[in-house]
Amino acid sequence: MYHRIKSRVYEILENSLQEDGFGKAFNIFIIVLICLNVTAVVLETEESLASQYGDLFWNFEVFSVAIFSIEYILRLWTCNLNPEYTGMLRGRIKYIFTPFAIIDLLAIMPFYLPMILPADLLIIRALRLFRLFRIFKLGRYSESMQTFINVINNKKEELTITVVMGFLLLLIASALMYTVEHDVQPDKFSSILTSMWWGVITLATVGYGDVVPMTPLGKFLGSIIALLGIGLFALPTGIMGSGFVEELHKRKETEKRICPHCGKDMDEPPEKHVPIEVPEPLTIKIIERKNR
Amino acid sequence: MYHRIKSRVYEILENSLQEDGFGKAFNIFIIVLICLNVTAVVLETEESLASQYGDLFWNFEVFSVAIFSIEYILRLWTCNLNPEYTGMLRGRIKYIFTPFAIIDLLAIMPFYLPMILPADLLIIRALRLFRLFRIFKLGRYSESMQTFINVINNKKEELTITVVMGFLLLLIASALMYTVEHDVQPDKFSSILTSMWWGVITLATVGYGDVVPMTPLGKFLGSIIALLGIGLFALPTGIMGSGFVEELHKRKETEKRICPHCGKDMDEPPEKHVPIEVPEPLTIKIIERKNR
Amino acid sequence: MYHRIKSRVYEILENSLQEDGFGKAFNIFIIVLICLNVTAVVLETEESLASQYGDLFWNFEVFSVAIFSIEYILRLWTCNLNPEYTGMLRGRIKYIFTPFAIIDLLAIMPFYLPMILPADLLIIRALRLFRLFRIFKLGRYSESMQTFINVINNKKEELTITVVMGFLLLLIASALMYTVEHDVQPDKFSSILTSMWWGVITLATVGYGDVVPMTPLGKFLGSIIALLGIGLFALPTGIMGSGFVEELHKRKETEKRICPHCGKDMDEPPEKHVPIEVPEPLTIKIIERKNR
Amino acid sequence: MYHRIKSRVYEILENSLQEDGFGKAFNIFIIVLICLNVTAVVLETEESLASQYGDLFWNFEVFSVAIFSIEYILRLWTCNLNPEYTGMLRGRIKYIFTPFAIIDLLAIMPFYLPMILPADLLIIRALRLFRLFRIFKLGRYSESMQTFINVINNKKEELTITVVMGFLLLLIASALMYTVEHDVQPDKFSSILTSMWWGVITLATVGYGDVVPMTPLGKFLGSIIALLGIGLFALPTGIMGSGFVEELHKRKETEKRICPHCGKDMDEPPEKHVPIEVPEPLTIKIIERKNR
Repeated sequence: MYHRIKSRVYEILENSLQEDGFGKAFNIFIIVLICLNVTAVVLETEESLASQYGDLFWNFEVFSVAIFSIEYILRLWTCNLNPEYTGMLRGRIKYIFTPFAIIDLLAIMPFYLPMILPADLLIIRALRLFRLFRIFKLGRYSESMQTFINVINNKKEELTITVVMGFLLLLIASALMYTVEHDVQPDKFSSILTSMWWGVITLATVGYGDVVPMTPLGKFLGSIIALLGIGLFALPTGIMGSGFVEELHKRKETEKRICPHCGKDMDEPPEKHVPIEVPEPLTIKIIERKNR
Repeated sequence: MYHRIKSRVYEILENSLQEDGFGKAFNIFIIVLICLNVTAVVLETEESLASQYGDLFWNFEVFSVAIFSIEYILRLWTCNLNPEYTGMLRGRIKYIFTPFAIIDLLAIMPFYLPMILPADLLIIRALRLFRLFRIFKLGRYSESMQTFINVINNKKEELTITVVMGFLLLLIASALMYTVEHDVQPDKFSSILTSMWWGVITLATVGYGDVVPMTPLGKFLGSIIALLGIGLFALPTGIMGSGFVEELHKRKETEKRICPHCGKDMDEPPEKHVPIEVPEPLTIKIIERKNR
Repeated sequence: MYHRIKSRVYEILENSLQEDGFGKAFNIFIIVLICLNVTAVVLETEESLASQYGDLFWNFEVFSVAIFSIEYILRLWTCNLNPEYTGMLRGRIKYIFTPFAIIDLLAIMPFYLPMILPADLLIIRALRLFRLFRIFKLGRYSESMQTFINVINNKKEELTITVVMGFLLLLIASALMYTVEHDVQPDKFSSILTSMWWGVITLATVGYGDVVPMTPLGKFLGSIIALLGIGLFALPTGIMGSGFVEELHKRKETEKRICPHCGKDMDEPPEKHVPIEVPEPLTIKIIERKNR
Repeated sequence: MYHRIKSRVYEILENSLQEDGFGKAFNIFIIVLICLNVTAVVLETEESLASQYGDLFWNFEVFSVAIFSIEYILRLWTCNLNPEYTGMLRGRIKYIFTPFAIIDLLAIMPFYLPMILPADLLIIRALRLFRLFRIFKLGRYSESMQTFINVINNKKEELTITVVMGFLLLLIASALMYTVEHDVQPDKFSSILTSMWWGVITLATVGYGDVVPMTPLGKFLGSIIALLGIGLFALPTGIMGSGFVEELHKRKETEKRICPHCGKDMDEPPEKHVPIEVPEPLTIKIIERKNR
């Protein structure tokens, strides 16, 4: 009986059965609850709404945390039905440190933490914000994100070079600008670190205009840095573009490049190919001639 | 007689006949009228022109709406000659809800609506603007737009992921910035929703500069978000780029990947390929030797 | 004698002979003169330089125009040696209307025009600027620009769709913003045409910040338009990227895809391929056996 | 003994031995020292830190320069063990002018130079900044940067055209804007050179907003230039994208395009391909028949 309930709960939580009305309904309920939570976090910062519907927000928060807490406990209870996390304690500890279990815990912690620890206003606001991370609970229900992560993984090396080179460019640009503009605008280019704000906003081509070079030399350097910023765009774009094309070719080639005469993959080494069948060329019936 | 006129009107409206001088002239007239209408809507908002040529604009509007209304009625009358919309009433109702019929109706409605409903000034201005949608009537005459829609359709899934991830990034960026900057600039980062204005303008690398982080932590976060905004660019660009390359390859491959030895498509299953013809190797004429 | 001089002048101007020291020197002289002219036009607008070195600029201008005028007359005189422009008058008139001859004429006209026509200050400044177009005279010496024009030509259709769709987006964005923001900022969104300045600067992600929506609805619309501006980037980038890849494949495929067994192009239809040579399988020497 | 020490020092500096604990430790020490130096240069410009920890910064600088100086001298001493730089003096002079040796020298020069030459404050600040170039010493330890330089090298021609065309566009845009806006904003568009600041910031889509056209004609021209700025993005992005795709195809094709029937590279000339092996069709044993 205990085991039947446990495995039924596991089925519902993992939505493992295909035709399971209640399992589906439960998962849709969780998804909707997550979306409503995120909306609530966003709207709660709107002061007029917060003062008017404060109680509603609080009640909804308590209700949501209750649901998510029960969900977390149930997942923890049933997780050792998964062959990956077998074991009374060892499996559960292993499960607690999986990404999704951590997200589930982080999603409810902002509620419990201020009860335990005394906290000032900024921390409390940061914790409220933390509730936004509940949105990552949705990751469990998305599958296509995986293919996207693959593309980034495949291009990890090139993207790393780009990031390193971009950081180098930023460092040198900011240092140059600090040297040139520090005397004229000592408040805006007070150090290399503060000049980096200008550097990032220019290289990313955002260009707020709150920090702008004023000396002719500063404008000349700024022009060159702004144009190099285009390169900073071109590189990751080119890399990601070629990454997507590559992914595409991979899928196509595995399906398509088959040798039409022996059915082997065109990319396999030639010794694995079956030689072309040539019809046996001759069978002269010599025995008959003997009898002649 | 009635049917001859009806089918002639249908021919002209649909421009179905190739060598139809009047049909062509009528269609060019409609295209020019649409373009003039759009120009009129734009120029009418120029106050100096509106006060000087007010009557002209009004008369032109009345004239255009008259033409478009007649066109709409004639299309409605003749639509059931199209085999897709047969039926006295059923075909016409089906036709009314096709995209182009809706556009045609929306193009004339801004004129008739204020006659029926009382409306304040903003609504009237919005309705005037609505006349701009007459430009979509041109869609009927464009065909190459279809190929473009194909590329977007093929990449629907990837673009959706990008949009979703972009929205997630925007949400978290805005929430973080709200937390950090709210105390210093309570008017500009008054809530997460208002912070989103900053978030979009930064992530899209527009950077008006009307809302800018001021605290060091805010600038640090803003820098990272601005750089991630480049990624937001790189992804759809890479996806669309690979989409266009893919479309290209598709067209090329259908022409080119032919097995050089049997002429079949390289992508067809091997059993459909003709085996390589080897010339029959031997025909010793044994009968002749008998006679020796 | 006359003809010998004429053809020698033609050789020098067209730099047609490979080992022609004087012809090369003359062409390098013209290229340097063009570059110096462009530099002069740019520097002349610097007021401090203009007042100090005014005479030098004027003398250099007179000298340059003299050289370019002589060059133009000589080209006109010798052009009918080119088989494309034969004929005393007909060939020369045909030559005058080639792009490079027009550029040559435009390069000297800003000097002569104010002598003939009376002109006010703005026109004179515009004419001075016109001298910048002398830089296009360099086009005669560049060849690699042709390949670049090819890529654009090949993608003409797609780029046209992009431009048309971009203009549509701009029109609707500006009209929407005009409707929403006109009441709050009547000076900055005074008409759809003036709103277009905001539209372009936002869609191109430049974002000066001189015109910014202020109403919440305006900010919401502005956010969506700014994000669509990313798409406006992604499309031409994707198209150009695929265009370059295409050009590349073209060149590669013409060189490489040769059937290794018969030397024909892999892309040619199979009936053009030579069938695989199979060694003649049997040559029984029957004659020898006769002698036994 | 002298030679043994020299070659041991060479081994450590070049990290040439695989399992060399001390060599690895030394190289990691140098890498960490470079990173700490760069951090120090950046933090030193922070006035509060500079005044508080001035001595620490100075001592660290003396220590670093001592290490780098010793490293430079040791590299110079041992360099002629490398077969490329043999020779007592000739090899060493050749080595001094290699990029990495120049970087090593530039990294220590900012310390020694003010001792020799008297210098004003700006020069001293510039020299301090110069210490940032120590980061390029890391280039010795990075290998993947080479592949990146390859892509740029392969696309040198196209990128050059882009840069030239971009400069042309910038020149004409700035000259046009100067002509149109000079009368209204004589301080911001005082000459073509100063207008170029506006031109670069607009074409790179940065858009600070410190210089903005104000006349209707200026705004019209500015709109067109801003839109052409998108093209300036699209071109290098497209080129780089196709460059990466090309690199990719190169690697793939060398592995993959093998003739499945003889194992040769599909791109090799046909005479190098082995003809298809057809099983020998007949071996009639004529000798046996003799004995009959």
